[in-house]
Amino acid sequence: MNESDYDYPDWTESQGPIRPPVEVILPCDPTADDKLFHICIAAVSLVVMLILIVDRRQNPSHRKGVAGLLSPVNFLNQTQPKGVALAVFGILFCELSVVVLSPNPLPFVRDPAPESKGYWRILSLFYYPALYYPLLACATLRSQASCVMGSLLTWAHLGVLVWQKADCPKTPQIYKYYTLLASVPQIACLVFLSVHYPLLLLRGWRKSGAMETGDADEGLDSSYYKDYVKKILKKCPSKPGTAKPTLCQRVSNTVRAYVYTPEEVFRIPVLLAVSVAVSFIAIYQLALLLVSAVVPTLHIARAGVDQDIAFVLAGFNIHLSDDRAEVVKIVVYYIWCVEVCYLSAMTLSCLISLVMLMRSMVLHRSNLKALYRGDVNNVYSHQRSTRPARPALVCWMGFTSYQAALVCIGMVIQTIVFFICLLLAVFLLLIPILHGQNLILFRLLLGTWPYWLTLLLVLILPHVAARFAFVKKDAGTIDLDNRSALFLLTYLLFPVNVLVGALLGAWRVVVSALYNIVHLGRMDISLLNRGVEPFDPGYHCYVHYLRVEVSQSHPVLKAFCGMLLQSIRKDSRVGQKMPDFEEGIQLVGPEKRQTRAAAARKARARWLLLLTLLNNPSLVSCRKHLQRPIVDGGVQNGTLNHTAVNAPTADAGGKD
Amino acid sequence: MNESDYDYPDWTESQGPIRPPVEVILPCDPTADDKLFHICIAAVSLVVMLILIVDRRQNPSHRKGVAGLLSPVNFLNQTQPKGVALAVFGILFCELSVVVLSPNPLPFVRDPAPESKGYWRILSLFYYPALYYPLLACATLRSQASCVMGSLLTWAHLGVLVWQKADCPKTPQIYKYYTLLASVPQIACLVFLSVHYPLLLLRGWRKSGAMETGDADEGLDSSYYKDYVKKILKKCPSKPGTAKPTLCQRVSNTVRAYVYTPEEVFRIPVLLAVSVAVSFIAIYQLALLLVSAVVPTLHIARAGVDQDIAFVLAGFNIHLSDDRAEVVKIVVYYIWCVEVCYLSAMTLSCLISLVMLMRSMVLHRSNLKALYRGDVNNVYSHQRSTRPARPALVCWMGFTSYQAALVCIGMVIQTIVFFICLLLAVFLLLIPILHGQNLILFRLLLGTWPYWLTLLLVLILPHVAARFAFVKKDAGTIDLDNRSALFLLTYLLFPVNVLVGALLGAWRVVVSALYNIVHLGRMDISLLNRGVEPFDPGYHCYVHYLRVEVSQSHPVLKAFCGMLLQSIRKDSRVGQKMPDFEEGIQLVGPEKRQTRAAAARKARARWLLLLTLLNNPSLVSCRKHLQRPIVDGGVQNGTLNHTAVNAPTADAGGKD
Repeated sequence: MNESDYDYPDWTESQGPIRPPVEVILPCDPTADDKLFHICIAAVSLVVMLILIVDRRQNPSHRKGVAGLLSPVNFLNQTQPKGVALAVFGILFCELSVVVLSPNPLPFVRDPAPESKGYWRILSLFYYPALYYPLLACATLRSQASCVMGSLLTWAHLGVLVWQKADCPKTPQIYKYYTLLASVPQIACLVFLSVHYPLLLLRGWRKSGAMETGDADEGLDSSYYKDYVKKILKKCPSKPGTAKPTLCQRVSNTVRAYVYTPEEVFRIPVLLAVSVAVSFIAIYQLALLLVSAVVPTLHIARAGVDQDIAFVLAGFNIHLSDDRAEVVKIVVYYIWCVEVCYLSAMTLSCLISLVMLMRSMVLHRSNLKALYRGDVNNVYSHQRSTRPARPALVCWMGFTSYQAALVCIGMVIQTIVFFICLLLAVFLLLIPILHGQNLILFRLLLGTWPYWLTLLLVLILPHVAARFAFVKKDAGTIDLDNRSALFLLTYLLFPVNVLVGALLGAWRVVVSALYNIVHLGRMDISLLNRGVEPFDPGYHCYVHYLRVEVSQSHPVLKAFCGMLLQSIRKDSRVGQKMPDFEEGIQLVGPEKRQTRAAAARKARARWLLLLTLLNNPSLVSCRKHLQRPIVDGGVQNGTLNHTAVNAPTADAGGKD
Repeated sequence: MNESDYDYPDWTESQGPIRPPVEVILPCDPTADDKLFHICIAAVSLVVMLILIVDRRQNPSHRKGVAGLLSPVNFLNQTQPKGVALAVFGILFCELSVVVLSPNPLPFVRDPAPESKGYWRILSLFYYPALYYPLLACATLRSQASCVMGSLLTWAHLGVLVWQKADCPKTPQIYKYYTLLASVPQIACLVFLSVHYPLLLLRGWRKSGAMETGDADEGLDSSYYKDYVKKILKKCPSKPGTAKPTLCQRVSNTVRAYVYTPEEVFRIPVLLAVSVAVSFIAIYQLALLLVSAVVPTLHIARAGVDQDIAFVLAGFNIHLSDDRAEVVKIVVYYIWCVEVCYLSAMTLSCLISLVMLMRSMVLHRSNLKALYRGDVNNVYSHQRSTRPARPALVCWMGFTSYQAALVCIGMVIQTIVFFICLLLAVFLLLIPILHGQNLILFRLLLGTWPYWLTLLLVLILPHVAARFAFVKKDAGTIDLDNRSALFLLTYLLFPVNVLVGALLGAWRVVVSALYNIVHLGRMDISLLNRGVEPFDPGYHCYVHYLRVEVSQSHPVLKAFCGMLLQSIRKDSRVGQKMPDFEEGIQLVGPEKRQTRAAAARKARARWLLLLTLLNNPSLVSCRKHLQRPIVDGGVQNGTLNHTAVNAPTADAGGKD
């Protein structure tokens, strides 16, 4: 590396007597005033919601009643399109970062008093979800009116946001382009929504009948569930497991473990998809914040270095050079090094977070698949119930947010640690080697070379001795040889091995700290030891999340319920083409209709039940008669009714 | 707490104008000069070894030849007494701490040049094991001559050490009584040896025949192995596992998991016992060093505080009080607080290390027992081979040292972390509360109470909602209710939950850091996640250690071999009362004698083999014919010979 490598845009400027004028960014008020816009859009959103409610009331033929309006998205239905939910959650997360950092957390209140700012901030945490709620609700309803209103609302949001950013691209906050760059994901999400709603409307016009009652490929009638069951029941050709994988195979396996490729017959749950999308946006926002909070400051510091720095350093007894101009040059160079270290650390932590996110996705899928087929021991280290409970539900509700927060904390800690490590590496190793001075570390190593040589010898000696003297291969069995020499060497090396043990301990500290720092943002693995895994709060939450997800949206059970519904429909000859969702509830509830041809259906249901239980042995323990063998004689009368009641929530789609 | 609680011995002295004179400790040369002593004792030890070798040569009737002299102790024999080995390793570890800290690492060279000190230090790491080797060798041989020489050597060591310490109780090094206190474990070990050797001699005189050939309760003929097998084969009355343990039972179980109580029919391996003893001494030495390196300095600093400190503090813009005498009082009080924090942190880390050591012992035993009965999956998370290999042997050799080093590193890190935590707690919580000033933390909390209240509400709200609205218990099954409200709440709480997630992340960092710091000194658990356990170097080493230990000293296999030897002895009517250890080797080697009554023996051996394999299913895979089914027709001719060859080292005691 020669001197030209240190060139940097500001390099020559900082030394010259002429300084570039410092850019002063004045507070900017966009033409589309934020306060006014929020008053209008909040009112419009409220009106939209009222219109939708009235529309619902007047048309009782709608599949979902007014209650449907109050359910933003069915988080437990894997078959519905996830785009709108992802976009709205993404927008919300972007708004959250604005709320946390902005001096004006709630746009209605301009320049609040410092003591009341906290209250407005808390209020705004609830205001934004309410504000963006209609965007979600319009997509859920899928009437033509809701699609039109959704489009209009989205366009209003998008238009004003783009207008504001075009008006005021620079703000005095943190870094001049920070707010502009921070709103990029928000704009992207709004663009997606503003395209999605018209498309929905178009599709609705084409097949106007299907729109009112939902697509055929959603809910229990979706072909997804049947395909899933078909794939499970298909016997895979057993691979010859004895053959060792080649290097190429091993590499491809490793890559496949870290790259998430969608599978045809597996759809990840909505909340999981949302959490991944939000985590991705969180990584972007945090990286932007980390860069824009530090790098411009370093630039200013570098530009501000002048020859007075030599006196300041002399005050601290630091003598870099006799020539004051050279001192300036060295200090500027050092600041540049710090900046490079910081940016490298930040990039590294971003990359690690992204890789970990991908790896998490792969593990989420394999965990879910394993739990669906009842393979509990592969996922948890201890036997666990797979039923929903109160704490499990709370963890399920917060999963997305916790994941995003953990990714952020993980990234911050990673950046700090990597930054310190890189600084040490650069200032203790790289710069001394390049400039041939301040070789403190090397002088230290050189001064203690006998120790290191001894340690190396002590590390090698037992290996060599074991290879040639102590391990005997005799007729295919491995055994010990020269026992007395082995014991003698064990004894003689004891004191030196304590020093080797110190190295081992240091290595242990480094490995475990690094592992935990890298994996801090991942909830799907525990940072603790095998025996105490659930004490890790992140992993604990993830386990509970899986519990709710698996018990409430088990694809095999849903396929089973779908088939039951179909068979009932065929028998009763209702003639409707679309599924009657009320029937699903009746299937579960005690008021099950007495239909004809009950015997044949019972037989079919029994067969299906048997098949399901055979392929999902873990479900057996969830059946009621196995848990309360005396109270209700479940074995005698437990066929169709039993199956539906015991199957953990067989009708996720049928209730709302 | 009132003012009198702050009283401390030096409290009044430090304020008065009269200072106690600082005690000056001059370097002390003991009458028993260290250099002279080491020259003499090294020569004597050499002579002792030569005498023993000559004695061996002249009496070829000895059970072990000259080779036996070169094997200090059979680390793979669980039946021999472990006292001597523990004592010698303890002495060695004490010497190691002297070597590392003393300015005179090797006693032959007085005041070495600084540049050559490193070499002497390395040399001394090998000198001390050689110096104390005769103490171990004399106990291994158990002849009358060796016992006499062992006693004399031990008395010489002990006498000179006690004499030196009595001559020079105070040294200028670190703290005046440091060297005296540091030699306490060494003196204790020497006292044990100096009593043990005469006792051995006495016992030898009483039954002079038994002494020459070793005790009957050692080696393959020990009743221990047979008792172990008997206990395994005894069917335990199966406990009713369905009943939930009461609180009392649970507490007693927890206590039992942390307190090691010896069991009648289980003896821990020699190396494990040595590692525990050495770790215990390491905790003592390190605690002593930590106290004596810091506390006297703090005492001196406290005694040296005078009214000038007010000016020094004013230079740093710290204004404690207007009255200079009060400033002195406050500073002295603060230094006393720091001292108390440091001592508490040190005590805490000592206690934790001791508790962890006990817990390790319990786990070592349960792991070894599980591996003996082939229960590999309970010990490791992955299937592993139980055969010795090169790296396994290296880890086995260093296990004791690594354990001691890890305990030391763990204690140092624990002390530092606990000290910082206690300092923060005392100076940010306790002192502000007691004195009612500098309530920075409380003011910060008070200023942000709306946040904390919101977070609390957000934590409680979902729990309450889940309890009363979302979870429905219907006919014994738990199911979700009010799904749309659940989804709505999930959506609305998303931004606030991100803040809850930040708390969860902080808690995760604290929990995992604390867990890893507390368990850093334990090799029997991995600090990493379930999937990557072997990447923890400490645990990796432990797994390898267990592998060698289990494969080489499996009590069932030893019992089996002992029974085989007995049956051969009975058949061949050798008439010797004592076991012929050469026979053991012949049992293994290909030159097996053709004895009479082979058929009956074969049948008995087959039965024993079957029984062993039935109770240790993991051993089946270790049998030769299962691994090389084609090369040698092991099934046809593999009975007695096979069993012995395949059983991983059936005759640990028979070879040396």
